[in-house]
Amino acid sequence: MSQPESTTLVKDIGEKGLLERLQQFCPPEIVGDDAAVVTTQPGKSLVVTTDMLVDEVHFGDRTTTPEAAGWRAAAANLSDLAAMGASPLGITIALGVPNDTPVNWIEQLYQGITQCLQKFDTFVIGGDVCRSSVKTIAITAFGEVHPERIIRRSTAQVGDAIVATGVHGASRAGLELLLQLETRQSFSNSTQQKLIQAHQHPQPRLDVLPILWEIISQFQHQTENANTCIHVAGMDSSDGLADAVLQICQMSQVGARVERSLIPLPDELKNWSSQQALEWALYGGEDFELVLCLPPDPAQALVQRLGKGAAIVGEITNDSEVYLVDQTGKTPDEVLSLKRGFQHF
Amino acid sequence: MSQPESTTLVKDIGEKGLLERLQQFCPPEIVGDDAAVVTTQPGKSLVVTTDMLVDEVHFGDRTTTPEAAGWRAAAANLSDLAAMGASPLGITIALGVPNDTPVNWIEQLYQGITQCLQKFDTFVIGGDVCRSSVKTIAITAFGEVHPERIIRRSTAQVGDAIVATGVHGASRAGLELLLQLETRQSFSNSTQQKLIQAHQHPQPRLDVLPILWEIISQFQHQTENANTCIHVAGMDSSDGLADAVLQICQMSQVGARVERSLIPLPDELKNWSSQQALEWALYGGEDFELVLCLPPDPAQALVQRLGKGAAIVGEITNDSEVYLVDQTGKTPDEVLSLKRGFQHF
Repeated sequence: MSQPESTTLVKDIGEKGLLERLQQFCPPEIVGDDAAVVTTQPGKSLVVTTDMLVDEVHFGDRTTTPEAAGWRAAAANLSDLAAMGASPLGITIALGVPNDTPVNWIEQLYQGITQCLQKFDTFVIGGDVCRSSVKTIAITAFGEVHPERIIRRSTAQVGDAIVATGVHGASRAGLELLLQLETRQSFSNSTQQKLIQAHQHPQPRLDVLPILWEIISQFQHQTENANTCIHVAGMDSSDGLADAVLQICQMSQVGARVERSLIPLPDELKNWSSQQALEWALYGGEDFELVLCLPPDPAQALVQRLGKGAAIVGEITNDSEVYLVDQTGKTPDEVLSLKRGFQHF
Repeated sequence: MSQPESTTLVKDIGEKGLLERLQQFCPPEIVGDDAAVVTTQPGKSLVVTTDMLVDEVHFGDRTTTPEAAGWRAAAANLSDLAAMGASPLGITIALGVPNDTPVNWIEQLYQGITQCLQKFDTFVIGGDVCRSSVKTIAITAFGEVHPERIIRRSTAQVGDAIVATGVHGASRAGLELLLQLETRQSFSNSTQQKLIQAHQHPQPRLDVLPILWEIISQFQHQTENANTCIHVAGMDSSDGLADAVLQICQMSQVGARVERSLIPLPDELKNWSSQQALEWALYGGEDFELVLCLPPDPAQALVQRLGKGAAIVGEITNDSEVYLVDQTGKTPDEVLSLKRGFQHF
C-alpha cells in the first residue's frame, strides 16, 4: 500500500508517524520526554520570544516554498534574539496542519527551519503537532545573554547615533517580484534572484553581537573612568526601519532625525524608483537587520567593521517626533508615523 | 462610537489595541522588547515544553468557556513541567484569531490562563497575536530543575513501584457530562459540578515535587552508602494512565503489571459502571496527574504523604509487555496498548 513519497498525507501516517518523521530534525538526546532540557551558562539571563505564522496571512504557496517559509520563520525568531543581544539556545515548534497536508510539505518546512538554525549553531529542541483547518506554525526561541549586555528599546539617549546594520528594502522588493510578475522586466535575472533571496532567506544579524561588544569593550577601556558603561539600545527591523526607530524613540521617550540620503538601499534598486525604494526600506519590513543606538564614536567604529551597507542613518534627539530629513533641502522634513506599518487586524 | 464591551471585536481595536489589552495580563516590567528576559538560578537546567490548541479540536464553546480553555491550556503545560521535575519560570502565548472574535472572548481566555498561572506563582512573559481563520493558541512553558532532579521517562527500573499521584478518570467523566446531557441524570448536582470542575480546571501536580524530593533525601540518608542515588522515572497522565505507563516502559525498555483494583477512581464514579470508570481512568486522559516509578519504600512513603487518592498501582517488571492484572482472578490479564489513546490525525 506504499505511495510515492510526495503524495503521502498526514492522515496516512497519523500523529505518531508524523512525530517520528519530525524527530529526525531534532538532536536525538532531546527527544522522548514531556519537555526538553537545555543547559544554560551560569550568570546569563534567559531570553524568550514567540511568533505565530498562519497560511495565507504569513505565507502562501504562491510566493513561498515550504522550505522558504521555514527559513523565514526561524530567521524571524533568531532576529528577535539578536535584537536583545542574546545567543540562541534552541527553538520549539508547534505545528497545526489539516489531515490532508502532504508529509513532504511538512518535511520541507522543517528542512528550511533547521537549515537556518544550523547556520547559527542551534537546534529544534521540542514541539507539538495537532490537527487544524489552516496550516499554522508557532515558534518559540530561547537564548541567553549576559545581564549587562541586554539590548533594550528603552535606553536610547539624546546624542546617540542610529546604526542600521545593513541595507533595507530588499526583502520587500523580493516580495514584489514574487507577487507582481510584470515587475520582473525591470531587473536582470541575477538581480531578481538576489532580491527574492533577501525575501525568502533573510539573515538574522547574530554576527553583529560579538563585533558590537568587542568595540564597546575597547571604547570603555579607553575612557578615563573604566566604570563608564556604554549603553546600547536597539531592536530588529522586522517591521521596517521606520517602525524600529519609532519604537525605540517611543520606549526611550526621545525623538530622532533620520537622514534620507544615509539610509542604505540595496544596490539592486539603484536604478529603480528611489522614492519606491525608500518606502520599502522604511515600511517594507522583514529585512531583519538591527537598528542600534549608541554614542557616535563606537557607532562609527561598528559601521566600519560591519561594512556591506551598514551605516549611521541619523541621531537621537530631544524632540518629541521622529523626522525624516533631507540634507540637500530638496524634500521637506517629514514626521514618521507607526500607522503606515503592517497591522495584523 | 463606543460599543458595549462584550461586542467589541478584534477588528474594532486592531493589533495594537489588542496587544495593549493583553499586556495587562503580563508583569509590566517584561513588556516592550523583542523578547522577554527571565532570570534563572545558577546551576539549574532550563526545561521547555510547547502545546498547540485549536478551536473545535481541543476546545469548543459547547463544552468549554474561554476561561476554562485558558486554564486547561496553562495547566497542561505546567503539568509537563511537573512531569520533568521542574518549577515554572513563565509561559509565552501565541494567539491566532479571526478578525470578528469578540475581544471579551480573548480576555476571558487570558483570565483563565493567568488564574491558573497565579495559583502556581508564575506569569505570562511574552506572546504574539495574529490573524487566523481558526482560533489557535500555542503555549510554551519554561521551567528550571536541578540537573540531578530531572524526571525522565527512560529511567524506570525493574522492581520500581508505579505511583499514580491522584484519581484518574474524573476529567473524562466531566467531559461526558458536558457532551451527553442525558448522562447527568445519574449524578447529583454537586457530583456533576465536581466532575466538570475536574475537566475544566485540572490541577497540575507541581505540589508533588517538594514532597517527592524530601522523601527521596530522607531515604538516601538512611541507606548505608550515602552516595546511593534513588532514580525517579515518570511523566504526566495527560493522555491517560495507560499511555503514561506504556510510554515509560517503552522508553525504559521494561514491562509492568498494573493491578486493576489499585487504580484510584473518583469517588463520584463509585456507583457508576466500574468498567466504564476504569476505561476512562486508563484511556480518558487530561487528569494531569503524575505517574512516577521509584523503589517501593519511598513510593509507599510518598503515597502516604500525598493522600487523596494517591496509590501504588503496580510494579515495573522485566516483561516486554504492560499487563493489566486482576488479583481476584475475576478478569483475565490484559495487555495494554497505546493504540487506544487519542490520536490527533
